[in-house]
Amino acid sequence: MPLFDLPLSELESYSPEIPIPADLVPFWTETLAETRRHDLALDRTPYDNKLALIETEDLTYAGFGGTPVKAWLHRPAGVEGPLPTVVQYHGYSGGRGFPHATTTWAQAGYAHLVMDTRGQGWSAGGPSGTADWAPEAGVNHTPGFMTSGLSDPRHYYYRRVYADAVRLLDVALALPEVDASKIIVTGGSQGGGITIAAAALAALSDIPLVGAAPDVPFLCHIRRAVELTDRLPYAEITQYLAAWRDHAEQAYATLAYIDGAVLGRLATAPTLFSVALMDPICPPSTVFAAYHAYGADASDPVLDKEIRVYGHNGHEGGGPYQIDAQLDWFAERFASTS
Amino acid sequence: MPLFDLPLSELESYSPEIPIPADLVPFWTETLAETRRHDLALDRTPYDNKLALIETEDLTYAGFGGTPVKAWLHRPAGVEGPLPTVVQYHGYSGGRGFPHATTTWAQAGYAHLVMDTRGQGWSAGGPSGTADWAPEAGVNHTPGFMTSGLSDPRHYYYRRVYADAVRLLDVALALPEVDASKIIVTGGSQGGGITIAAAALAALSDIPLVGAAPDVPFLCHIRRAVELTDRLPYAEITQYLAAWRDHAEQAYATLAYIDGAVLGRLATAPTLFSVALMDPICPPSTVFAAYHAYGADASDPVLDKEIRVYGHNGHEGGGPYQIDAQLDWFAERFASTS
Amino acid sequence: MPLFDLPLSELESYSPEIPIPADLVPFWTETLAETRRHDLALDRTPYDNKLALIETEDLTYAGFGGTPVKAWLHRPAGVEGPLPTVVQYHGYSGGRGFPHATTTWAQAGYAHLVMDTRGQGWSAGGPSGTADWAPEAGVNHTPGFMTSGLSDPRHYYYRRVYADAVRLLDVALALPEVDASKIIVTGGSQGGGITIAAAALAALSDIPLVGAAPDVPFLCHIRRAVELTDRLPYAEITQYLAAWRDHAEQAYATLAYIDGAVLGRLATAPTLFSVALMDPICPPSTVFAAYHAYGADASDPVLDKEIRVYGHNGHEGGGPYQIDAQLDWFAERFASTS
Amino acid sequence: MPLFDLPLSELESYSPEIPIPADLVPFWTETLAETRRHDLALDRTPYDNKLALIETEDLTYAGFGGTPVKAWLHRPAGVEGPLPTVVQYHGYSGGRGFPHATTTWAQAGYAHLVMDTRGQGWSAGGPSGTADWAPEAGVNHTPGFMTSGLSDPRHYYYRRVYADAVRLLDVALALPEVDASKIIVTGGSQGGGITIAAAALAALSDIPLVGAAPDVPFLCHIRRAVELTDRLPYAEITQYLAAWRDHAEQAYATLAYIDGAVLGRLATAPTLFSVALMDPICPPSTVFAAYHAYGADASDPVLDKEIRVYGHNGHEGGGPYQIDAQLDWFAERFASTS
Amino acid sequence: MPLFDLPLSELESYSPEIPIPADLVPFWTETLAETRRHDLALDRTPYDNKLALIETEDLTYAGFGGTPVKAWLHRPAGVEGPLPTVVQYHGYSGGRGFPHATTTWAQAGYAHLVMDTRGQGWSAGGPSGTADWAPEAGVNHTPGFMTSGLSDPRHYYYRRVYADAVRLLDVALALPEVDASKIIVTGGSQGGGITIAAAALAALSDIPLVGAAPDVPFLCHIRRAVELTDRLPYAEITQYLAAWRDHAEQAYATLAYIDGAVLGRLATAPTLFSVALMDPICPPSTVFAAYHAYGADASDPVLDKEIRVYGHNGHEGGGPYQIDAQLDWFAERFASTS
Amino acid sequence: MPLFDLPLSELESYSPEIPIPADLVPFWTETLAETRRHDLALDRTPYDNKLALIETEDLTYAGFGGTPVKAWLHRPAGVEGPLPTVVQYHGYSGGRGFPHATTTWAQAGYAHLVMDTRGQGWSAGGPSGTADWAPEAGVNHTPGFMTSGLSDPRHYYYRRVYADAVRLLDVALALPEVDASKIIVTGGSQGGGITIAAAALAALSDIPLVGAAPDVPFLCHIRRAVELTDRLPYAEITQYLAAWRDHAEQAYATLAYIDGAVLGRLATAPTLFSVALMDPICPPSTVFAAYHAYGADASDPVLDKEIRVYGHNGHEGGGPYQIDAQLDWFAERFASTS
Repeated sequence: MPLFDLPLSELESYSPEIPIPADLVPFWTETLAETRRHDLALDRTPYDNKLALIETEDLTYAGFGGTPVKAWLHRPAGVEGPLPTVVQYHGYSGGRGFPHATTTWAQAGYAHLVMDTRGQGWSAGGPSGTADWAPEAGVNHTPGFMTSGLSDPRHYYYRRVYADAVRLLDVALALPEVDASKIIVTGGSQGGGITIAAAALAALSDIPLVGAAPDVPFLCHIRRAVELTDRLPYAEITQYLAAWRDHAEQAYATLAYIDGAVLGRLATAPTLFSVALMDPICPPSTVFAAYHAYGADASDPVLDKEIRVYGHNGHEGGGPYQIDAQLDWFAERFASTS
Repeated sequence: MPLFDLPLSELESYSPEIPIPADLVPFWTETLAETRRHDLALDRTPYDNKLALIETEDLTYAGFGGTPVKAWLHRPAGVEGPLPTVVQYHGYSGGRGFPHATTTWAQAGYAHLVMDTRGQGWSAGGPSGTADWAPEAGVNHTPGFMTSGLSDPRHYYYRRVYADAVRLLDVALALPEVDASKIIVTGGSQGGGITIAAAALAALSDIPLVGAAPDVPFLCHIRRAVELTDRLPYAEITQYLAAWRDHAEQAYATLAYIDGAVLGRLATAPTLFSVALMDPICPPSTVFAAYHAYGADASDPVLDKEIRVYGHNGHEGGGPYQIDAQLDWFAERFASTS
Repeated sequence: MPLFDLPLSELESYSPEIPIPADLVPFWTETLAETRRHDLALDRTPYDNKLALIETEDLTYAGFGGTPVKAWLHRPAGVEGPLPTVVQYHGYSGGRGFPHATTTWAQAGYAHLVMDTRGQGWSAGGPSGTADWAPEAGVNHTPGFMTSGLSDPRHYYYRRVYADAVRLLDVALALPEVDASKIIVTGGSQGGGITIAAAALAALSDIPLVGAAPDVPFLCHIRRAVELTDRLPYAEITQYLAAWRDHAEQAYATLAYIDGAVLGRLATAPTLFSVALMDPICPPSTVFAAYHAYGADASDPVLDKEIRVYGHNGHEGGGPYQIDAQLDWFAERFASTS
Repeated sequence: MPLFDLPLSELESYSPEIPIPADLVPFWTETLAETRRHDLALDRTPYDNKLALIETEDLTYAGFGGTPVKAWLHRPAGVEGPLPTVVQYHGYSGGRGFPHATTTWAQAGYAHLVMDTRGQGWSAGGPSGTADWAPEAGVNHTPGFMTSGLSDPRHYYYRRVYADAVRLLDVALALPEVDASKIIVTGGSQGGGITIAAAALAALSDIPLVGAAPDVPFLCHIRRAVELTDRLPYAEITQYLAAWRDHAEQAYATLAYIDGAVLGRLATAPTLFSVALMDPICPPSTVFAAYHAYGADASDPVLDKEIRVYGHNGHEGGGPYQIDAQLDWFAERFASTS
Repeated sequence: MPLFDLPLSELESYSPEIPIPADLVPFWTETLAETRRHDLALDRTPYDNKLALIETEDLTYAGFGGTPVKAWLHRPAGVEGPLPTVVQYHGYSGGRGFPHATTTWAQAGYAHLVMDTRGQGWSAGGPSGTADWAPEAGVNHTPGFMTSGLSDPRHYYYRRVYADAVRLLDVALALPEVDASKIIVTGGSQGGGITIAAAALAALSDIPLVGAAPDVPFLCHIRRAVELTDRLPYAEITQYLAAWRDHAEQAYATLAYIDGAVLGRLATAPTLFSVALMDPICPPSTVFAAYHAYGADASDPVLDKEIRVYGHNGHEGGGPYQIDAQLDWFAERFASTS
Repeated sequence: MPLFDLPLSELESYSPEIPIPADLVPFWTETLAETRRHDLALDRTPYDNKLALIETEDLTYAGFGGTPVKAWLHRPAGVEGPLPTVVQYHGYSGGRGFPHATTTWAQAGYAHLVMDTRGQGWSAGGPSGTADWAPEAGVNHTPGFMTSGLSDPRHYYYRRVYADAVRLLDVALALPEVDASKIIVTGGSQGGGITIAAAALAALSDIPLVGAAPDVPFLCHIRRAVELTDRLPYAEITQYLAAWRDHAEQAYATLAYIDGAVLGRLATAPTLFSVALMDPICPPSTVFAAYHAYGADASDPVLDKEIRVYGHNGHEGGGPYQIDAQLDWFAERFASTS
């Protein structure tokens, strides 16, 4: 059934109670503090992207545990800035790949940072990679990254990734080309999940963002997702719990720390979501759960939010239509910030 | 079997005899003449692509039968030219879509023309479309465009598309922003098939090209493709001939007029092909057949040719690696032309 | 889930509110008037069907826009009539095919008309075809016919097909072999959708029918169908709206003009429906929606109606069991008309 | 790969050595003798087929082991005959079903016998069935009939079916409506396999046939089929031998007695085969093996043979095109016999 | 949707009304009486299982209709007993196979009887088989055993299997190595369905059992299962009723006699069930229906019951976790019986 | 095509030239030396397996890099030995799981060691796991273990696993319950690949084995496997090289160090292989390549070798038939060693 989830009328007010770990904030505060104990160790190396209009640098910085994490920094060629800046996170399996492959926000005239996702990259390839250089990387898990470290939130893979993502915001703040008062975070699917996390953790870190734009975000209301879809990557969790049948409660307890419908409550930046009603990878109710939770626990709950609904799409979501909408929304946000 | 076609060692010299229609050249000469009898009727309208670095115009010109065909013209913002120019054709189901969706060659500093494919567009969507405004469009055929008009080469769909493609070269030559001595044609899959055809028909029209770069081209050695793959779009032909069991010989006779492994023999421009050895959509032997035939019947057979082989890829082919190779190859070609 | 739709107990009273275009009747009245402005141009040519018991003629008549449409006329060999007559429409992808392929109603002793479906035929093949000779045939659409002209009801493919279907009733009335007081329309799947339309439009045209027998009809409550099934041909619409994401409301507005659960409200003839509860192509709720709407807006709402429910079948529906039921029902209807 | 088997040029002379059981002829001679020891016990009951042009009787006769086997006898209504006669056998899963479902040869003016296949019928349904009333029916086997009794040719399912098929020829000879000098046997898929067997066993029984017309026959060169296709029903054998890994040699020894490429060598009637080059159910080489073997061991090897090749079809084969060809071929054969 | 059935909270009290045949008890009483009229004809033959720790005998006994049924008897090598005893029934397609393949309960120190399932074995293979030596075995049915004899409960396949299962309990009582006061029945899937039946019919026969342990049982609340799943073997019923469209009510009337959610009401032994919430073969609601019905109609309704729920598993259910739980539960049950 | 690989007649002599790394022996000699620099750190803890006949201990020992690796030690209850001993390695995704799940060789009267596979276990679950506690575990790779560390043989995952496997032989030699002159290694699929490696590396370490019994071994002639099958886990390599298109030569260079058709040349123990001709996971030619290479480079090339061929099986191979054959072969080998 293409419309396999709740009907739109119910989605529009779908706001389930999802248990929030008692120590959610301290967990992340400590995680970030621990990560920041490592020097940022930022390295900038010019990189020939072969594009005349865009200038690219190959960045390396210290992510979680001090692991060297890669990123691209794109800018309009010859422009020094400081510029409004878009920080982009990639979907599952991807990574920063080639510099010419992801330049939309630089084309739009902004500084554009693209984070590599540690351990991933197997759909993007490219000239280099970011290993998940963590001792826990080899714990027993199903193929993929979703279940790596599921038995302890401190060992869980996405703790490291989210910390990397925040650390890239630290990089942005450190770059003279970046106008620190004009940063937007964005990404699709896993990149959308990281976007929500980055927005929440930026708030915890008092990093101001002028917007967060997650598309068809993954990693939201995960327990429901596991019940609703048998498609990867959520199904990695099903596969794990089908074997280790007695680990389910601990697994869901761990996942609560990184769930976008939980963590996103802390976000404070305005937001533009997108969701697709026939998305079998990231079911729409899990996205709406995150959308409605977003910013709910900010001291000033976020009211400036919007979600674009694509009625006949699967996980490709809005595709170029959403890019078009974001081009407008980003321009407005950057313009309204003086 | 992933490597379902011939082994690479045989592919490297795979050069089958494919029957060439006796009137191949007159057929196309007349087709182009007939097309050019319609005024080019070029319309240029500025279009807000929302990208600061690139300027886009919405072009309309008279294609086959005078049908209005759409194209994007991208240029580095504020640059008048004349510029080296890349003309790009799209894959099956696609079309020009949104202007922000296909700008690589403008980013590289070139003028960049993107043709809409008549009747198609159902994977790209976008703000407008190019109808296949031909009386034959409604003849009996299987879903899709592959079998539309198969019983007569004059009514066959790709006759119209190829004529549109050449007419876009006429447009290029007419644009002051285009350096007429520096034009490369390119495209992937169907766009690769059109690229080969454009290279051949440009030769017939004495339009000089400095290169043709077809990626994993479709529409090559079609009879073998039908025998080798049950995947769409080649399988549209199978489906058609499974119903109209007595039309096979006529169908293959028609297809010979547009087959890249036949028509491409007439091309004269240097070429950079790509092929993927596990490509179930455009089997590698059909691509190699076209590669080896390419330019073979030019008065000066084309020797300046190269094919990049991707050993573990399906129809995605070289993806960003091939773009990377093309960025180099195009730059060299444009540089070597004074 | 085999029983993926509503349970039978709910289906039996499933009668959703579906918006009716304000100009539904004028739209069709004008369409038929426009069609009838073309001379019927009926051509009858004897055709050797190679069957001793049945005599076949190859008919051609002017359908929508004057396009020549093909049909078979079968009769018991050597019988002049006038005879009770069955007019049959074919399922999607089919067409009239070979004359020996569809003769049930002639075997039963009736005159039997079989309409070719313009543009289709790719599952039937056969000695000839009916092109969709309309200028709009080439507008952008997904493979298949479901989305051809979706942006304007006047250009939509099924407007032409339904007009052809009514015009074949005009042919029937013009044939001396047909007893004009004893005509039944029938067909399965797309043929069922056309049957409902023919019954409605016959009523608009004051053509008396003694029955309409749609089996597992397609083209009913289309918006719900698109939400319920990912199977072709309904999925052609999904595919279209997945690309042109902003066309949905116009598309559904167009579809309302040809939806069997809308148009069928105008029918006046008694009816025998069939439905299959595990039908993933034409979901049972869409059929029941049409069944309950059928004849509801006739001046004399149709009460003489029946639906055969096949509990364990997919789109094959009742198959030979339904033919058996129709053989009885048709005989009764023809007998009760003096 | 659609053309997964040998190329046509090799198929045209594909005539493999297949071991012939030493006692093939005595095995079948004794089987038929044993079957004929049971009285034919023919019962004829008029049956209302609801078709005015065709008269049907419900036949019951004693098949193998005396089991009551069902058949339909159709005739042009009101015609006594004796008539040229077509005896038809059904495809796997089918059976005689409803009388209105299979009447082509009666429509053509012939007497038309349709055999029910014992134990089967699950795709046809219908008013009655023929149980496989044999003690061996319950021996261990995979789902389906292909492996029932595989460990002993005397217990194998198709021994019983082939005997039933010959016994229906005995019935034909006993019917006054049948012109015994004008009988053709035919059928598709399993029905094609039975047709070949009936032609061979008719020769052993001195029953004259004027033709045998197997379409895309199943049950031919079975060992090769098992190696070439993973589709049912051949795959029932694979499944059986995947479990009982030590039974393969005995299984193939049993199958040799009923293999159409073995047994068909004994046939003497002229033949019209059909084959489809993309048939994944009955691979073309297995059909060609049977075609070339057909009649090879007749005292007068059969030279009057023809095979229609459908190049782009799967197991549907020639469909209505082959019926069309058979209508001609049958008429010629019947005409040439005085 | 992985969690395609009711949510756990509803399953925990899911207790549907399922019609109980009026003559359920007499039907089975007579079936068992009739079966027992045949002498047990127990044959014990030592069999070399090649395992030093376990001694195996090849048993043959008279099942339903006197058919010789096979079983393995395993014991700890050199131990005479009498021993606590586990009687195991196999899943669909399986059978007793090789003696070394199923020895868990002998390893645990018990006598262990393993019944062969008549006619089956095609996933196990092995040195011998048990034919379904019944005259009704050849009645028309879809491939497999689920629909064999569906038109009459007396001819239905599982009547014979359940009688065989009870007869193996008679064998157990007759063996000096078995402690008749310590017998547990168990099995998974079809073996779970037979386990429930054996528990019910043991109660009818006054055979005391100390436990019944069905895992993910098949053959429960069958009508609902047919509506919920399109997976084999339940889908054999769908396939049957899709052809014989008028047999549904009789079919379900037959199935009621062997449905575990009906027959299990008669059971009296304590029970340990297991169920998997993502089981597409034996949907969880059908298992819960049986669980809640189990023992409900015993003079002393069974209260000593437990069900292990596996939240993320398909039909593999608890696998080794459930074995682990059974090792404990069986040991407790055996210990608590003095 | 079920028989998709070479025909048996060719397989029987299929012995391709596969490049052997020049430093193969030093690579492994150093790897083992480095591994043995860590103390064996053997820990033995009694474990309640709940089986009366078998006694189990939970072993932990230092594998590659000193990582603690888990294993089960099973013995016939109450028997001290020294006993002939079977060391078993598991298939991909598995691991030692529950102790009751893998006891065949203990049932046969032997000491039975079962190695846990580091990082894996996601199809077995169980009470504990062995993490792949290596710094390289987090390098970029596709989901699964096949491509972890592919860019350097020293970082490749299977280097660690093979070293663990040899280290378990060291454990065996250290156990008083083990008769060091009577050790056989065995396993299926990945366990078969590890078996071949263990046999080769045991030879390098002068550990005497009386036999090696790999079933349908994985990790053999890997380059050919990648070309022949698109099934996991070999397809993990395809997926990796489809992204990192320029890594293929390095990847295959790495794989050569662990390829069973390369490394197995060094083995000296007699061997019993098995292979399945329809195995799409481990294609038969890759197994035959390893079989023919096995022991070819021993100072005394291994002549005592045998391969059981299963003609109709997929990756399940011989299943219980092969166990049956191994029970005999192991008993003979153990008996012939005094």
